[in-house]
Amino acid sequence: MQPVPILRYMPGPHYIKDIQKNISCSTSAALSTTLPARTFPELQPLMAHPQSEHNNSQEDRKEKDPMQPGRKALQRARACFLKGVSYFSGDMKVFGKWMEKQFFLLQLLDWILRGAAQVMFVNNPLSGLIIFAGLILQNYWWALNGFVGTLFATISALILQQNRGAVAAGLYGYNGILVGLLMAVFSKAGDWYWWLLLPNIFMSMMCPIVSSALASINSRWDLPVFTLPFNILVCLHMVATGHYNQYFPQVLIQPLSETPNITWAEVSVTKLFMSVPVGIGQVYGCDNPWTGGIFIISLFISSPITCAHAILGSAAGMVSGLALAAPFGNIYAGLWGYNCVLACIAIGGMFYALTWQVHLLAITCAFFCAYLGSAISNIMSRFGLPACTWPFCLSALTFLLLTTGTNKIFKLPLAKVTYPEKNLCFFWKLKKQEKMEKAENEKKDSKELQKAIEEEVILNEKEQLRLEQMRLERMEEARVASEASEDENDETHVKDHAPGVEQQGTEEYV
Amino acid sequence: MQPVPILRYMPGPHYIKDIQKNISCSTSAALSTTLPARTFPELQPLMAHPQSEHNNSQEDRKEKDPMQPGRKALQRARACFLKGVSYFSGDMKVFGKWMEKQFFLLQLLDWILRGAAQVMFVNNPLSGLIIFAGLILQNYWWALNGFVGTLFATISALILQQNRGAVAAGLYGYNGILVGLLMAVFSKAGDWYWWLLLPNIFMSMMCPIVSSALASINSRWDLPVFTLPFNILVCLHMVATGHYNQYFPQVLIQPLSETPNITWAEVSVTKLFMSVPVGIGQVYGCDNPWTGGIFIISLFISSPITCAHAILGSAAGMVSGLALAAPFGNIYAGLWGYNCVLACIAIGGMFYALTWQVHLLAITCAFFCAYLGSAISNIMSRFGLPACTWPFCLSALTFLLLTTGTNKIFKLPLAKVTYPEKNLCFFWKLKKQEKMEKAENEKKDSKELQKAIEEEVILNEKEQLRLEQMRLERMEEARVASEASEDENDETHVKDHAPGVEQQGTEEYV
Amino acid sequence: MQPVPILRYMPGPHYIKDIQKNISCSTSAALSTTLPARTFPELQPLMAHPQSEHNNSQEDRKEKDPMQPGRKALQRARACFLKGVSYFSGDMKVFGKWMEKQFFLLQLLDWILRGAAQVMFVNNPLSGLIIFAGLILQNYWWALNGFVGTLFATISALILQQNRGAVAAGLYGYNGILVGLLMAVFSKAGDWYWWLLLPNIFMSMMCPIVSSALASINSRWDLPVFTLPFNILVCLHMVATGHYNQYFPQVLIQPLSETPNITWAEVSVTKLFMSVPVGIGQVYGCDNPWTGGIFIISLFISSPITCAHAILGSAAGMVSGLALAAPFGNIYAGLWGYNCVLACIAIGGMFYALTWQVHLLAITCAFFCAYLGSAISNIMSRFGLPACTWPFCLSALTFLLLTTGTNKIFKLPLAKVTYPEKNLCFFWKLKKQEKMEKAENEKKDSKELQKAIEEEVILNEKEQLRLEQMRLERMEEARVASEASEDENDETHVKDHAPGVEQQGTEEYV
Repeated sequence: MQPVPILRYMPGPHYIKDIQKNISCSTSAALSTTLPARTFPELQPLMAHPQSEHNNSQEDRKEKDPMQPGRKALQRARACFLKGVSYFSGDMKVFGKWMEKQFFLLQLLDWILRGAAQVMFVNNPLSGLIIFAGLILQNYWWALNGFVGTLFATISALILQQNRGAVAAGLYGYNGILVGLLMAVFSKAGDWYWWLLLPNIFMSMMCPIVSSALASINSRWDLPVFTLPFNILVCLHMVATGHYNQYFPQVLIQPLSETPNITWAEVSVTKLFMSVPVGIGQVYGCDNPWTGGIFIISLFISSPITCAHAILGSAAGMVSGLALAAPFGNIYAGLWGYNCVLACIAIGGMFYALTWQVHLLAITCAFFCAYLGSAISNIMSRFGLPACTWPFCLSALTFLLLTTGTNKIFKLPLAKVTYPEKNLCFFWKLKKQEKMEKAENEKKDSKELQKAIEEEVILNEKEQLRLEQMRLERMEEARVASEASEDENDETHVKDHAPGVEQQGTEEYV
Repeated sequence: MQPVPILRYMPGPHYIKDIQKNISCSTSAALSTTLPARTFPELQPLMAHPQSEHNNSQEDRKEKDPMQPGRKALQRARACFLKGVSYFSGDMKVFGKWMEKQFFLLQLLDWILRGAAQVMFVNNPLSGLIIFAGLILQNYWWALNGFVGTLFATISALILQQNRGAVAAGLYGYNGILVGLLMAVFSKAGDWYWWLLLPNIFMSMMCPIVSSALASINSRWDLPVFTLPFNILVCLHMVATGHYNQYFPQVLIQPLSETPNITWAEVSVTKLFMSVPVGIGQVYGCDNPWTGGIFIISLFISSPITCAHAILGSAAGMVSGLALAAPFGNIYAGLWGYNCVLACIAIGGMFYALTWQVHLLAITCAFFCAYLGSAISNIMSRFGLPACTWPFCLSALTFLLLTTGTNKIFKLPLAKVTYPEKNLCFFWKLKKQEKMEKAENEKKDSKELQKAIEEEVILNEKEQLRLEQMRLERMEEARVASEASEDENDETHVKDHAPGVEQQGTEEYV
Repeated sequence: MQPVPILRYMPGPHYIKDIQKNISCSTSAALSTTLPARTFPELQPLMAHPQSEHNNSQEDRKEKDPMQPGRKALQRARACFLKGVSYFSGDMKVFGKWMEKQFFLLQLLDWILRGAAQVMFVNNPLSGLIIFAGLILQNYWWALNGFVGTLFATISALILQQNRGAVAAGLYGYNGILVGLLMAVFSKAGDWYWWLLLPNIFMSMMCPIVSSALASINSRWDLPVFTLPFNILVCLHMVATGHYNQYFPQVLIQPLSETPNITWAEVSVTKLFMSVPVGIGQVYGCDNPWTGGIFIISLFISSPITCAHAILGSAAGMVSGLALAAPFGNIYAGLWGYNCVLACIAIGGMFYALTWQVHLLAITCAFFCAYLGSAISNIMSRFGLPACTWPFCLSALTFLLLTTGTNKIFKLPLAKVTYPEKNLCFFWKLKKQEKMEKAENEKKDSKELQKAIEEEVILNEKEQLRLEQMRLERMEEARVASEASEDENDETHVKDHAPGVEQQGTEEYV
């Protein structure tokens, strides 16, 4: 039985091979939002012959070549800086490559850090490290539970012999960290209740099984599993034990039973602004705005596009909360934001190639996600459950299943998904290829048309010649016949024959 | 990425091409329920040479040809009338064709009207117009909301560049009208609460996205999406806001908490009979029996089979309500009928070709749907939600997924679904083709068998001849040998040779 | 439309053909758990030439051939006994084959009995008979309802012309028996409320429709439908009528609303042990431990592996209940066991070939199922519903969707599933085949490698020879030319020629 490609995305082994030639591409793309319409040939990793690289670079920089030496030096310095950036931005492929030859425990740490960042679709150990720092800032016990969850989820994936590339990308860890964190967050037993580690470890180890099962289904539509395993397993644990459990009691979540009093005079603009980073922090269940800010930094390091969409999503969620008359407390706490953050990242450049249309679609998805979030949290509260990230999963899956007639909304094949900037590179390359093929086809078509016309002309000429010959032959026959019958009038014969020869000659030069 | 065929059904561009030859077929089929076993050759749209058409018509009318001139004139008048009917019954293809060359806003109006009728699987702008009349009779505000919903759903589908043929058939509008209508029906804010138009427009515009996403999934099983997008979006809106929302409060729906008092003495037979049209009206959320009656007319115009199944379904729902001890109020209000109406239409001739077996299946499905409706409404009421048309969707999908060994239950390919009468035509044509192919194959087989027998006979004869010849040759050799050795006894040789010749002659005539 | 392979598993017609050769295999496998590493050649059904059979048997018995006559007789007696066992263990193929030629009602009875046992994945009429005995011991009325359910489900499948092989294996009956039983169990109207038979018959007859529909979906992932139709239909009936229904009231099931008082001093070890057979009995809704014991016997008759996993599963469920602080009453009543029983059977050898890894997976699945069971029963209780076997279905489907990189976890193709012992035989045969193919391929490869090396050597020699010849020829030519041009200086020529000869000699030994 061949293993089904699973999870949110899988970089695949072929990526490692072309690492060298891609770095320049990825870096320049990663910076394209901040420095638009500007590419840096010096970003080539080896930097040996920057001048020779110019020949291979794009045409739009041709006119800039005869620049001043001062600007050149500045640019080179900048490029140096950017090359340094390229080593720890994106998915840190060079680092990942280097890690492969290291000690197993060090590798495992790399996988855990990547797993921690993968919650936000970021495949970057540095981001993961910063995220853990943010978690520690929030709560030691939660951070510990998150670490344990990631660790055991990754170990379980190794035991079950899941795809090693996916494990190394942290794709089996991100559900684990969420399971660990959120089980600690929603436990009523308080911090440092060590027994909680038992269900934490059990549920984390179930993550790869549920992931693999869901991937078997979702892969039929080339869809990722997102955080569905986390949603399923945390809801499972919470509802299986419940608020009244003696060993593992959960916090009490109850449905709304009366109209909340919302007076716009009471709204605090500061808190509303603060709700944007808090919303990003709530992806990991953290309500500390500083933690949220740290998470924003960790996103920016890996991919500015992701970071921008995270902020946009959180803002969209906040606005939706205001529009749907949600209690201000919930909005301030970032509960309207975190699903929109994830949905906006997923649609805005991660699984679709970023164009303006996709950007608008991502914002629409964020608003839809907020609506759905309100609905799902109302339903789940009847069972004493939080909304988890169900709204994000369902809305993002819906928007990924969308099919349109336009080629401006291009869904990347799951195996090609990396991070927004590189996805964009892939999309552009594909588009250029298509254009070239089209142009070639057109050229071919026009050539063939010309050829066909020429051939037709030649054929016509041949046909005319043939007809002429036939006419001549018939004349000849007639002449022979007439000669045989009336041998005396020779002048007419010569007269008849001459024009034929003339005509033939003219035709040959047409 | 190629767009996935979506929605309930999609007529496809090839239908437009063969419009001329199909009209006669569709019309005669459309009337086959009211005028069974009777076909009208004069219904050919051009009506130029009705006599010449007779040659191509079916054999069962051959004996009627030498009829009286009076009856002939009567029949012709009738045919004239029926030809007129053919222009506004069925899916009004001629009108749709004519519409394609009109002004865009006029086209949009056609699409909206078709969308309004598509809720009942009817692709007919006249039916849509009558349905809007019924809605206006019920409530102006609801009708307006329905119109806005259809309009924005269709516009959203155009923006998202969905299949133009599907848009023109109203397949992106029917969820919109239901979303608009039902959001108005279940709003506690009362009529003419203009803010309601905002979520109405947002949800209507989400319709094509959800439709497209669901179609990506359902198309794997060649299933339509039915009204699932409407169900999802209206439930989403209602549960996201809820009864206690300040801006968009919903009517309070609560679960049953005590045994209702049902005494059969109190039952009103008139109201039970009235519940049949009311049940049909409830498809659009209308409890006015006159509105229901108008809807019945609109169904009859397009397709009598659909109309009959709608009435049957509503009756089945009413009976189920009585059998399951439902409060009489609910039954009178048509709440037991509307899902069964849709389920009975869908199974009875729309997605299956109508045979007696399918007819029974449709009635079974209506009863199952009523049961399911009771279950779903009990569950949904816990969340303050109505049952919407979930029971219809789930029961119809279940019955469409059914696979049987009999060829009497024939599920039409989704791309070939139009309306029951034409579907039947398609099924009959297919069956005739199969029969002819079978007959041909049998003929061929029997011919081949005969040929094979003949060949074998010939081969046997040849073999015998060859054997005979060999025997003769051997004899000849023996003779030569014997002649050479014993040249004196010539009589024996002649004797031996003669019988061989005789035998050869007889064998040739066996 | 070709019928979709459905249900839990389908033996397929090809099994009947190779019945003779399989019996020995299946029997020896069936006993492999009790009598490991021991095969009985005398189990061949015809037993005509036990000595000759030895030649075909496995090599590990070769050394036993020259054994004492006393031991031989003992073994033969034992074999005789085991051969008798082979007729009513496993899936009783011989009996099924014999049944095919019997009277229809007798056949129907066979199908019903097999259907009753199929709840536990056992395709054996004797087990079914014993199970019915257990049901009668529990409650006459329940047993009657179960019988009616199985009967009408099977009849409905026949009417709908479902796969005859699947019907004969009881695959359309097991949902029927559960529907019938559980509708009686959960009815508040008490025993012998004859009206209950009406919804019972209706729901039983819906079973094949829902089964077929679900199979259309599940077959895409080669998954069985398990007891999903039963779950859907019983929940449908219960929630459609509910506790407050006048005609068909259901027992009141309410969610937990306060912390239950669990004191470990009160625990009764006897009752905990008793909960293991009770848990097995609860698969059919029976809380009588004797009934559970009878069910264990019926499982053992057909397949000891199934029986062992059933007991293991029930124990795992009991332990989970204790670990999750469930009220002791629930644990004693077997409510924590029955889902785990089914899940453990399904994973442990039924749909996966039994290896140690699969055994561990089955136990993990049982624990996961218990967790899920607690969660689902908490959710369902909000709607007044029991958990039914939803936890089993969902956990088993999850574990069957798992994909791993190891070949120790081998999921059988659905069409090849029979019973654990035979599945194991199939797996071993497949593995042996693979090994042989591999060995052959290796042999071939090594041969080819050798050949290739030899050929290369030969080629090299030839090439060298050719080169040498060419050189010589060129020399010859040069010599001829030089001879012709400068015939006078003979000494130089001889000088030139000599080194060439020397060189040739050295080259041959390079």
